[in-house]
Amino acid sequence: MSEVNRYHNIYERQRLIIEEKISKVLDDKKPDSLYGPGSYILQSGGKRLRPLLVLLSAKASGGKLSQVYNAALAVELLHNFTLVHDDIMDNADKRRGRLTIHKKYDVNTAILTGDSLLSIAYELLLKDCKQNTNLVLSSFNNSLIEVCEGQSLDKDFELRQEISIDEYYLMINKKTAALLSMCCNIGALLTGASKQVVNALSAFGQNIGMAFQIQDDMLDIIGGESFGKKIGGDLVEGKKTYLFIKALEKAKGDDQKKLRKMIKEKGIKPEEIDEYKKIYEKLGILDDARNEIKGFTKKALSKLNKLDKVEDRNTFIWLADSLIKRSK
Amino acid sequence: MSEVNRYHNIYERQRLIIEEKISKVLDDKKPDSLYGPGSYILQSGGKRLRPLLVLLSAKASGGKLSQVYNAALAVELLHNFTLVHDDIMDNADKRRGRLTIHKKYDVNTAILTGDSLLSIAYELLLKDCKQNTNLVLSSFNNSLIEVCEGQSLDKDFELRQEISIDEYYLMINKKTAALLSMCCNIGALLTGASKQVVNALSAFGQNIGMAFQIQDDMLDIIGGESFGKKIGGDLVEGKKTYLFIKALEKAKGDDQKKLRKMIKEKGIKPEEIDEYKKIYEKLGILDDARNEIKGFTKKALSKLNKLDKVEDRNTFIWLADSLIKRSK
Repeated sequence: MSEVNRYHNIYERQRLIIEEKISKVLDDKKPDSLYGPGSYILQSGGKRLRPLLVLLSAKASGGKLSQVYNAALAVELLHNFTLVHDDIMDNADKRRGRLTIHKKYDVNTAILTGDSLLSIAYELLLKDCKQNTNLVLSSFNNSLIEVCEGQSLDKDFELRQEISIDEYYLMINKKTAALLSMCCNIGALLTGASKQVVNALSAFGQNIGMAFQIQDDMLDIIGGESFGKKIGGDLVEGKKTYLFIKALEKAKGDDQKKLRKMIKEKGIKPEEIDEYKKIYEKLGILDDARNEIKGFTKKALSKLNKLDKVEDRNTFIWLADSLIKRSK
Repeated sequence: MSEVNRYHNIYERQRLIIEEKISKVLDDKKPDSLYGPGSYILQSGGKRLRPLLVLLSAKASGGKLSQVYNAALAVELLHNFTLVHDDIMDNADKRRGRLTIHKKYDVNTAILTGDSLLSIAYELLLKDCKQNTNLVLSSFNNSLIEVCEGQSLDKDFELRQEISIDEYYLMINKKTAALLSMCCNIGALLTGASKQVVNALSAFGQNIGMAFQIQDDMLDIIGGESFGKKIGGDLVEGKKTYLFIKALEKAKGDDQKKLRKMIKEKGIKPEEIDEYKKIYEKLGILDDARNEIKGFTKKALSKLNKLDKVEDRNTFIWLADSLIKRSK
């Protein structure tokens, strides 16, 4: 078996365990009107990247996976809480190919489902808190604060003309990277890792998170159509992604005008996507994005020398590589 | 100074301290688009009953108020989180005489404001966690779970014809009493109270909470108009309160028909309020409610014998008495 296959199998095995556990996590809870919609969103699949980060970080800290399974579920519930509320705010119809909660049920159900997923997330996390409890809870809660602040900045950006790359980085750091960083952080803290390892893994998660989000922005242009996502969807919705902000920074003349048109009209028509894609290509924006992703990934990987075992380092290297190469 | 005045002054002094602290709690936080609406709702006054319960419970446990001020703010932020999200779900225009967040801003802002108030609540609570951390956080978080479940039951009841008093009690226990009980519980836990005192204060809070909610239902009929609340508002909105459920249980003939009309039409016209009030009076519903309030209050007070100091017992007795006599 190749090295890559081996790591993929490790991931796949843990993903299935998480799927199994997550399918049962709300089983004994009542009322169904609250936990039914919660189960629906939790069982719509996904990469389960966040729980995996908790598990791998615990293992790399010398701990046992059994010490952190509840925490792994907790971060997935926290993530799904953000998805449910964000989907209301974005008025999104679909999520992973299925109707969003507020479309399948209604906005009130979606608000309350999100709230309750968050409450169960804390409940799960507390089950695994046998040491470093204050630090773990602060870390978990800070990532929630960051996600709220990041989402608020994202909403602000919709109403503003000019966003700098630095402002954009602040936003995705809060909205995406902070949560991935927290996953590594609590996986290490819950298993009593040294401060050095805790910090190294947190920094790994944060940098991987930045790379992950820029990659996400890229996939809107170069990704295959999947899960109901359409190429160029971000442009149609007028989203100020890394690609767009960088292009606006570099563009001149007609290209600049064209880009400003998207801002002014809060989005473009689907038939205009190709034109915008060509502007991106002409300005070398996709290469810029690839370089940024490489830079963040390199920084992430540089933290791994604090880990003792080659095996653990290699698992994280495989994971970082898979994230860069993913097409969805 | 009379005894009553003395306790009222103690309360008033603490209320002002809480007001002062709460007016600053989001001061250093950014972005304003997120924390501005949060400050707005936090500064719309109110009784600050929940923080007071934390403070009094800490004192009755032999602790210092300074050990629990952050926790006192935390429960008020948790409470305000529920108000902001409930107001969206109820489509309420006003809260304490001012526009609700989703009316003053929009629904998306209100969702995110609620989420962030909750995140800051946990942050504040963690600051005061020097002992019993797991128990305190479980208690705080369980009350959040209960509030979500209670709100979901409340929504379910809107769609159902027949609700029993027991079902209603389960709902208000989750939606109102659990949070008041938690306030007493964590006030005691954070200051290292004995298990006996912790349990006694929690039970006090829970029973006072039940009395408080039935009193709230009563005030819809007998209260003075205040803060934009109109007499009979619950009837107009078709809410199945203690009064209504009890009346439906006892009514016969035309009265029964009339009550069922409210269910069928999901509310009544303002000019019909007097008619319904007369049915309540004829059936002795207000006396039933008063008896229930007395019963829960008596049960609450019976728990106080676990407290060492007369002074502490008397403060809680004064508080219970004030809640029963309140007109808003």
